[in-house]
Amino acid sequence: MSLLVIGTAALDSVRTPFGEREEVLGGSAVYFAVAASFFTPVRLVAAIGEDFPEAHLHLLAGRGIDLSGLRRLPGRTFRWRGEYGYDLNEAHTLDTQLNVLERFDAELTDAEAATPYVFLANIDPVLQQRVRRRVRGTRMLAADTMNFWIERQRPDLLAVLRDLDLLIINDAEARMLANQPSLPRAARDILRLGPRALIVKRGEYGVALFGEGGPFAAPALPLEEVADPTGAGDSFAGGLMGHLAACGRHDAATLRQAVIYGSVMASFNVEDFSLSRLLRLTRAEVDERFRHLTALMHFDPIEPARG
Amino acid sequence: MSLLVIGTAALDSVRTPFGEREEVLGGSAVYFAVAASFFTPVRLVAAIGEDFPEAHLHLLAGRGIDLSGLRRLPGRTFRWRGEYGYDLNEAHTLDTQLNVLERFDAELTDAEAATPYVFLANIDPVLQQRVRRRVRGTRMLAADTMNFWIERQRPDLLAVLRDLDLLIINDAEARMLANQPSLPRAARDILRLGPRALIVKRGEYGVALFGEGGPFAAPALPLEEVADPTGAGDSFAGGLMGHLAACGRHDAATLRQAVIYGSVMASFNVEDFSLSRLLRLTRAEVDERFRHLTALMHFDPIEPARG
Repeated sequence: MSLLVIGTAALDSVRTPFGEREEVLGGSAVYFAVAASFFTPVRLVAAIGEDFPEAHLHLLAGRGIDLSGLRRLPGRTFRWRGEYGYDLNEAHTLDTQLNVLERFDAELTDAEAATPYVFLANIDPVLQQRVRRRVRGTRMLAADTMNFWIERQRPDLLAVLRDLDLLIINDAEARMLANQPSLPRAARDILRLGPRALIVKRGEYGVALFGEGGPFAAPALPLEEVADPTGAGDSFAGGLMGHLAACGRHDAATLRQAVIYGSVMASFNVEDFSLSRLLRLTRAEVDERFRHLTALMHFDPIEPARG
Repeated sequence: MSLLVIGTAALDSVRTPFGEREEVLGGSAVYFAVAASFFTPVRLVAAIGEDFPEAHLHLLAGRGIDLSGLRRLPGRTFRWRGEYGYDLNEAHTLDTQLNVLERFDAELTDAEAATPYVFLANIDPVLQQRVRRRVRGTRMLAADTMNFWIERQRPDLLAVLRDLDLLIINDAEARMLANQPSLPRAARDILRLGPRALIVKRGEYGVALFGEGGPFAAPALPLEEVADPTGAGDSFAGGLMGHLAACGRHDAATLRQAVIYGSVMASFNVEDFSLSRLLRLTRAEVDERFRHLTALMHFDPIEPARG
C-alpha cells in the first residue's frame, strides 16, 4: 500500500568529527521517503524553495518517489546547520533558517488525504495537526517530533498525540515529554496521552517498543564507522513505515519486524553524509543486514514452564 | 561443575534516590556467589574481618555457598560507601576503607586452585594475577575490573587480561581501557590484549558480547522500579558464570544463553537494596524472567537469501 510522508525538505550543513558538508540534501521527510522507498511507493509532501537543486529532484525521482506533493514556494529552501561531537547521539543546532517553511500550509489534496499509511515527520505540530484532521480512511497514522516542539508548543503537540497509532521519538524526547527520568515510566505516561504504540529510539543503544505490539526491545548493530548521524531517526521511521505499508498491516508481529527494518535503514544511513549511503544501497543489502541483526540477537530459548 | 569466585566481601553504605542503607552485606564476590548459587555449587574466596556478622554467614550458607574459602583476618571488614543520582548507571564512591583487604594475599589451596570455572571478581589486579598463575586445569577463567584499576594499575591489569577466556566490564570501563570512544572499536582493541571474549555491560541499555560467541547483543529488561544498582554487574557475572558452570561448557550457544541469565540476575538484584531481592528469589522466577526476556526480543525472521 502507498505511504505518504509530510515533513521538511532541507539543505543541511553538517560537521561531525569525521568530516563536514555544506548545503547537502536533507530534511525529515526526505530521509524518511528515501528509506521507505526500498519497501513501498512513497508520496513526499514538503515545501521547497526556488533554489532547491534539480539534481536533488532527479535523485529522489530515481528512487521512484512520487514528487507531485512537493510544493515549490517563492523564496529559499529551509536550511539547517548543525554539528556533532564524539557523542554522536546528540546534534547541536547552530542555525535554522525557516525560509519557505514559514509559508507552508500543509494542505493536502483529496488524493493525498486518502493515502492508507501516513507519517507526520518532524515539523511544526500545528501543521501535523492540520494533516491529521484532513486525512480520510487512513489505516495507520504515525508521527515524530523533537525537543523544540515539546518545549515550545506542548498543547499543539498533545493534540497531535491523541488517537495516534504510533509515536516515534528518541529517549531524551520521551523523558522530556513525560517529565520523567525513568524510561519505562515515561513510556507508560506517554501512552496515556493517546498513542496506541510508542517507539523510543536510543541511538547506538537500540530501540524499544511500548504499548500495542510491545514490550519489544532490540539492540542497534554495533557500527565501527559512523560518519554522520543526521537523518538516522527519519531513516528509521522510513524503514519501519515502509515495511508496514508494504505488508498492508501493523499487527504485533509485523510491527516488530518493522522495528528491525527501521534499525537496518538507520544503520546504513549513518555510514555516510547526507543521503549518500541510502542512495547507493540495494534491497539485497537491506535484507542481508536484517538477517545479520537477527543473528546478532539470537539465543536458544529454554524449556517452557510446566504446569 | 563447581565454580570459584575470588573478590571482595564488604559492608556497604549506600544512598540512592529511593532510600539508604548502612553497613549492609555487599562485595563483588558476595553478589557474584549469591547470583551463581541459583545455578551451580559456588566456592567463595574473600577476606572478612573480625566484625563480619555471623548472620551474613548464615544467609550465604543458606544459599548452599561453600564458605570454607572465607579468610577471617584480624581487623575490620572492607567497607564501601557510595551514592547514586537519578542516573543510576554511575556510582559515586564517597569512602573506601580497605581494612582486612590490605592483608589479603589471595593464596589458594590446592583444592581451590583445581576448580574448573573461576571468576576473578573486581579486586586489586595484583591479587587477580596471583590467582590466575595458581589455578590448574581450569576450563574457563573470567574476570571483571573497574575504572580505578584501569587508571592506577594498568600494567598489572594487562597481565591479567592475557589469555583470559572472558573479560566482563561496563561500557565506560571498555572505553577507558582502550582509550577509544567508539565501543565496537574499543572492543576490537581489547580483544587484541588477550581475552578470547569480551562482554560489555551497558546498564539499562543491555549488554554486548564480542569475540568468541559474538557478536551478540541483548537489551535489558525495562524496569519501572530500580531501588539500588549496587552489585548489578557482579550479579550479572554470577548468573552468567553460574549457567556456564552448570552446563559444563562455554560454546557460543551456551555463552549467549548465559548472557541472558546474567541479565536476569542483574534485573532482580537492582529491585531492592543489598542482597535482599536475590535472597528471596526462586529458581522458578529466574526461568520465568528468562522467558520474559526471550519474548521481549522475539521477532519473526525473514527468508534466508537465495543463491
